[in-house]
Amino acid sequence: MNARAFSFELQATDGRARAATLHTPHGEVPTPVYMPVGTQATVKAVSPRDLSDMGAAIVLANAYHLYLRPGDELIARLGGLHRFMGWEGPILTDSGGYQVFSLAQRRRVDPDGVTFRSHIDGSEHRFTPEKVIAIQEKLGADFITCLDECAPPLDREYNVKALRRTHSWAERCLAAKSRADQALFGILQGGIFTDLREQSARFLTDLGFDGYAIGGLSVGETKEQTYTVLDALQAQLPADRPRYLMGVGTPADLVECVARGVDMFDCVLPTRLARNGGALTRAGRLNLRNARFSDDAGPLEEGCSCYACSRFSRAYIRHLVAANEILGHQLLTMHNLHLMLTVARELRAAIVEGQFDSYRRGFAAAAEPA
Amino acid sequence: MNARAFSFELQATDGRARAATLHTPHGEVPTPVYMPVGTQATVKAVSPRDLSDMGAAIVLANAYHLYLRPGDELIARLGGLHRFMGWEGPILTDSGGYQVFSLAQRRRVDPDGVTFRSHIDGSEHRFTPEKVIAIQEKLGADFITCLDECAPPLDREYNVKALRRTHSWAERCLAAKSRADQALFGILQGGIFTDLREQSARFLTDLGFDGYAIGGLSVGETKEQTYTVLDALQAQLPADRPRYLMGVGTPADLVECVARGVDMFDCVLPTRLARNGGALTRAGRLNLRNARFSDDAGPLEEGCSCYACSRFSRAYIRHLVAANEILGHQLLTMHNLHLMLTVARELRAAIVEGQFDSYRRGFAAAAEPA
Repeated sequence: MNARAFSFELQATDGRARAATLHTPHGEVPTPVYMPVGTQATVKAVSPRDLSDMGAAIVLANAYHLYLRPGDELIARLGGLHRFMGWEGPILTDSGGYQVFSLAQRRRVDPDGVTFRSHIDGSEHRFTPEKVIAIQEKLGADFITCLDECAPPLDREYNVKALRRTHSWAERCLAAKSRADQALFGILQGGIFTDLREQSARFLTDLGFDGYAIGGLSVGETKEQTYTVLDALQAQLPADRPRYLMGVGTPADLVECVARGVDMFDCVLPTRLARNGGALTRAGRLNLRNARFSDDAGPLEEGCSCYACSRFSRAYIRHLVAANEILGHQLLTMHNLHLMLTVARELRAAIVEGQFDSYRRGFAAAAEPA
Repeated sequence: MNARAFSFELQATDGRARAATLHTPHGEVPTPVYMPVGTQATVKAVSPRDLSDMGAAIVLANAYHLYLRPGDELIARLGGLHRFMGWEGPILTDSGGYQVFSLAQRRRVDPDGVTFRSHIDGSEHRFTPEKVIAIQEKLGADFITCLDECAPPLDREYNVKALRRTHSWAERCLAAKSRADQALFGILQGGIFTDLREQSARFLTDLGFDGYAIGGLSVGETKEQTYTVLDALQAQLPADRPRYLMGVGTPADLVECVARGVDMFDCVLPTRLARNGGALTRAGRLNLRNARFSDDAGPLEEGCSCYACSRFSRAYIRHLVAANEILGHQLLTMHNLHLMLTVARELRAAIVEGQFDSYRRGFAAAAEPA
């Protein structure tokens, strides 16, 4: 990582699990870390103050969404993304590759880039590797990411073709990057195919990035296939760079992927589930729309110290959800994020104390049988 | 007011403006006071913690809404409204008379009460004075209110008839009340007709309530008509009881009605406007949907110390509103409530210092010409 502004300081390992600190121009990030997702420059239904109170160290934002609305130029004029969204800590921007490729019929890929229609107003736009770096330099996040082509993980032929473009674009992103106060992550692709993943790891590590993101998972493959990919990458990724598994996952996924050497996670599940009336717990999920919670005086999760659990009953939160009250979204979001952040902190403590295996077994035992 | 649990302590008057303290089983309420509206046991888009941070001293909830969902019996089983909604301060419940009479085609009044269909599922229900007191005793708010018939304020004939029922129901509410830890407010009706209002004041003060609510305004009459009613009531209402003007209004309304002896206010405008992208300011209103705010680095209101203004630009809040992000509702709600609460505090300070007229003139001067 850039010596002036960034470093990845490894504190402890326990098996393949790692505890480290990311030093950035906007503060430190202890890892393993869960990064709440703030797609449109806001983590849905919570304020930056709430996020700080919960102990969030870093948040995500999305270059595709912010380029379209309100525009990266506008955000730059207003002093950059940190000031714009009132978040003083580190930020990572996703390049938007995943979002563009999710547009399906509304985009056209060529070797130079991708042309797509906005999901907001249908207007036509073009992303090239250089454009995506320029957008992210305008936004000014601490961590930025390459443009990649996100292929369906089980389609080998597509992945072979997509990988070629992803690698060529990674090279161009690296060459286009001009700001010294941002760290650039390469994104590995290759679906569930370990040979393609290894090839991607070799190519990107030869180029040399500040960190390595593992993209294209959590979109249809099984957990075992994800684990197989992570196992294959273990020997390929340099020990002195952070590893970020994109879009994963649940509290249990955090535990299992940290066991396989991952340092950084993001996932919309905790916030999206909350807006649908769902709570994450160590034992599983609760659907607060369910009438069985109407009379339940207990907290969302016994023993949880979040604001929602320390103050409100399941019965009250169910009432808010049934009445479609915004506070229901807010409280469920707080709880779900708090759980993810807490599990990440516990994982770190377990690694530092050499107790990772015992923590992992305890975590699995707390889960309800599926 | 009930000597054991309640008292109204007058601290200062300046002209007809009054500064007092309401003592309740859940703490003190300095007046003049603005009460944020928590219809369904939540002030929309803000948590009790946020409300405390803003300096809210008391909140409203609505007996009609909570009777229908989740049910007053359920709330009682869960320990009452304070515990249910996580608000430790005083609460006032509106009887729901206004909501029932707003149902128009879906309700039928008779001398004994009113039969209506739920706005949620069309099921039939009946409110009598006794029923409405029983509901509010189950909910357990500090201040409860009589069932009243809310007539269109300009329709004299309707008001004459409605007043008879309102008075008979007030008598029955007083007789039905059994809890010593709740204060009961009578509700004056009579539309814009000063003789009817005076008659209502005489009738209710003869019965003797813990406080007097002025209902049926802010639904179609002019400000001048409201002021005329308040002027007529000045001599009729006892100086040693709180006066609550229901459903009013803007920051400027607070100033003008405090000038006419009102102590307590509630209004959904600050929270409802926020959810439509609107900000209240001393100078007037801002519509954050307006594109002219896209590039505006200033706060919602210059000099405001609320969380939204101390941290975020108009441009950011406009972005949130345009992108339909919940945080937009949250920040605008915080700002609007903060302004109402701040104006109420400033009014109190001005009265205590004998500077009310000067404050009132300054407030009017800050408003933009209409």
